Amino acid sequence: MEAEKNQDINEKLLFTNHVAQAIDEITLSLKPNGVFVVVDVNTASFVLPRLQEESQAIGSAKIIMLKAGEMHKNLDSLSQIWKQLGDAGATRSSLVINLGGGVITDMGAFAASTFKRGIPFTNVPTTLLGAVDASVGGKTGINFNSLKNEVGMFSNAELSIISTTFFRTLTSQELLAGYAEMIKHAFLSSAEETNRLLAYDITQYDPEKLLDMLRESVQVKVRFVNDDFTDRGMRRALNFGHTIAHAFEALAMKRRSPLSHGYAVAFGMVAALVLSHLKFGFPSDELHRYAGYVKRYYGAFDISCNDYKDLLEFMHHDKKNTVTGDLSCTLLKAYGDPQINVPVTSAEMQTALDLYRDLLSLA
Amino acid sequence: MEAEKNQDINEKLLFTNHVAQAIDEITLSLKPNGVFVVVDVNTASFVLPRLQEESQAIGSAKIIMLKAGEMHKNLDSLSQIWKQLGDAGATRSSLVINLGGGVITDMGAFAASTFKRGIPFTNVPTTLLGAVDASVGGKTGINFNSLKNEVGMFSNAELSIISTTFFRTLTSQELLAGYAEMIKHAFLSSAEETNRLLAYDITQYDPEKLLDMLRESVQVKVRFVNDDFTDRGMRRALNFGHTIAHAFEALAMKRRSPLSHGYAVAFGMVAALVLSHLKFGFPSDELHRYAGYVKRYYGAFDISCNDYKDLLEFMHHDKKNTVTGDLSCTLLKAYGDPQINVPVTSAEMQTALDLYRDLLSLA
Repeated sequence: MEAEKNQDINEKLLFTNHVAQAIDEITLSLKPNGVFVVVDVNTASFVLPRLQEESQAIGSAKIIMLKAGEMHKNLDSLSQIWKQLGDAGATRSSLVINLGGGVITDMGAFAASTFKRGIPFTNVPTTLLGAVDASVGGKTGINFNSLKNEVGMFSNAELSIISTTFFRTLTSQELLAGYAEMIKHAFLSSAEETNRLLAYDITQYDPEKLLDMLRESVQVKVRFVNDDFTDRGMRRALNFGHTIAHAFEALAMKRRSPLSHGYAVAFGMVAALVLSHLKFGFPSDELHRYAGYVKRYYGAFDISCNDYKDLLEFMHHDKKNTVTGDLSCTLLKAYGDPQINVPVTSAEMQTALDLYRDLLSLA
Repeated sequence: MEAEKNQDINEKLLFTNHVAQAIDEITLSLKPNGVFVVVDVNTASFVLPRLQEESQAIGSAKIIMLKAGEMHKNLDSLSQIWKQLGDAGATRSSLVINLGGGVITDMGAFAASTFKRGIPFTNVPTTLLGAVDASVGGKTGINFNSLKNEVGMFSNAELSIISTTFFRTLTSQELLAGYAEMIKHAFLSSAEETNRLLAYDITQYDPEKLLDMLRESVQVKVRFVNDDFTDRGMRRALNFGHTIAHAFEALAMKRRSPLSHGYAVAFGMVAALVLSHLKFGFPSDELHRYAGYVKRYYGAFDISCNDYKDLLEFMHHDKKNTVTGDLSCTLLKAYGDPQINVPVTSAEMQTALDLYRDLLSLA
C-alpha cells in the first residue's frame, strides 16, 4: 500500500497521495470517541466534500468551520474552536483533524493542544507551504496584539499527512509561496539539492515527483527540529531569510497590501545571501543566480531607502531578536553550512538591503 | 542559608520562609531581560508591597494586576496578561512571576507558557491550597464555556517557591480549604501520615511546623506526578474525592452559592471513602473517624436525593470521565493503596451519596 511505503521519515509524518485511506487508518488506530474536522470556508468547499465521500472518519465527523485568511488567525477563531469542541462533547479521547493551510493547522493544533489541557490531533495540510513548513516542527499558535504568532505553543501532531493531491486547486502564486520554503531547505542541505530545485518549474509540477521532492525537503526540516524542539539552538538554521522576510511582511501590512509569507521568504533570502557573501564569502555567482531566479518567478518586493528605518525596527521586534544591540541572523557559509546567531549591525543590514534592491533592479 | 537547606525534593520546588531572598536568587540565576509579576488586587494589597521592599527583582518588576476570584479566571484576564506582556516588551528571555492563589498561578502560568510559544515563569503561591496543590504538577489553564479548566496545558515552572509566610492573612476557611488537599495526600501516603494530619488543628498552625508538613505533603504529589506528566495513569490517584467534589462545586454554582474547591474535596472524600468501603472493604471505623472530622471542621454540603440526577450528570461530564457508561473513580483499598479507574455504577454512586448524607447528618 502506498501509505505504508512512504512512511519513512518518522512515525509522525506520512507522505501519501491516498489521503482518505491514511485518515481512516490513523483514526482506526487511535480509536477516538469522536472526530472533529477543523476547516476554513475554502477547504470546506474545495477539499472537504470529496474527503467526506472517500473517508469514513471524515464522513461521520463533526465539522468546525472558520473564516478563511491570516486575519482570522486570531483569538476569536480560537475561541470558536474551543467552544464548538466543548459543545459537541469532545473529550481527551477525541481526535481533531486540521484540514487546511498553515492558518488552519497552526490554529487548530493550538486549539486541540489546549482544549482540556490537550487532546490528540492530526494535520492534513492542503497547501504546499503548509505541507513543507507548518505541518512539521510543532509550532502552533495565533496572531495577537497585531503580532504574528504572538501566542501559541510547541505541540506535535499524532500524525501529519502530507500529500500533493490538494495542490490542483492552488494558484501559481500559492505554489511559488510554498516552493520558497523548499528552496530554503535546499540551501540548508546541499548544492546538489539547490541545483535540482532551481532547475524545476513548480508551476508545472508532477504530483508524484513533487511528493518525492517534498519528502526530501521535509526531511531537512525534521533533521534541524529534532533535538531542538523549543527553538533555541540549531533549529534557528530554519530561520534563514526569515528576519528580513518578517520585516517585509510587517512593512507590507503597514502599507495595507499584505505580502504572502512564502514570497517574503523568497525575497528575504536574497538579502540573507548578500549578508552571507559579505560576512562569510558565500559565492557571488550563486547569489546572482538565485537573485535571477527570484526576479523571474517572484518579481520583487519594492522598498526604498526611506523604508530602512521601519524595516530595522521590525527586525528588532522579531521573536528571535532583542530590542537593543545587533540583530541575530542565520547566514550561509556555503550550501549546507548554516551559521546561526550571527550578529549583524544595522549598517550591515542596510548594505544588504541596498544590494537586494540592486540585484532585483529596484530603484 | 534557609533556602538552600530546604531545597530537597527536586530543583523545581523550594520550601522556604525567606521568599524575597529566594526570588532574587532565582532571578539572578536566570538573568532575565525583564521581570513581570502577575497578581490580583488582593495579593497586590496584602502581599506585594512588602515583597517590593524586600526583593530587588520584585521591586523593579512590571506589575500585571488582575481582578480577583475564580470568575475572573477567564479568557479576558488571560488576554490582558498576554497584552501587557507584549506591550511592555517581554521576550523569551523575560521572567514571569505568578504571585497569588491557584487562580493566579494557573492563569499566569498558562499565559507565560503560551506567550511567544512559551517564556519562563516562577510560581509563588500565597494560599495553602495553592501551595499544596496548584504549584506542583504543571497544570495550567482557565475556565471557559462555563467549565473549570476547560482550556489550558501542562507546563512546569522554572521554580515554585513554597512558603507559609503569606498564610497570616488567610481566614480559617481558606486554611481548611488547603488542608483538605493535604489530607488527601496523607490518605494516599500512609495511616501514620493520616493520623498526624487528623490530629493537627490547621487553624492554629505554626509557620515552621506547617512548612515541614507541606514539604511532606507535596512530596506525595510529586511522587504521583513524576513519570505521568500528562495525567493518564497513576497520577489519577490524586483525583481521589475529586469526581464527587467537582460535581458538588458544579451544583453549588448552579445554586448560585459557590463552594470552595478545598471544601468540596473534603466533602467529596467522605463519599469516596464510602465507595472504598463498599467496593474494597476500606475500614468502616476509619470512614467514621474522617466523617466526624469533616463534620467538626468543615460542616457539610447540603444535598438531598432530588439533587442526585444533577450530580450524576455533572460527574459524567467531568474531564476524566466519559459521557456514557460507568463512572471512573479513584478509591482506596487502604491508606497508601489507591486504586485508579475503578468503574462505579450510578446505583453505587447513589448509595454513596445516601451514606454521605447519613454520615454528615443531612436529612
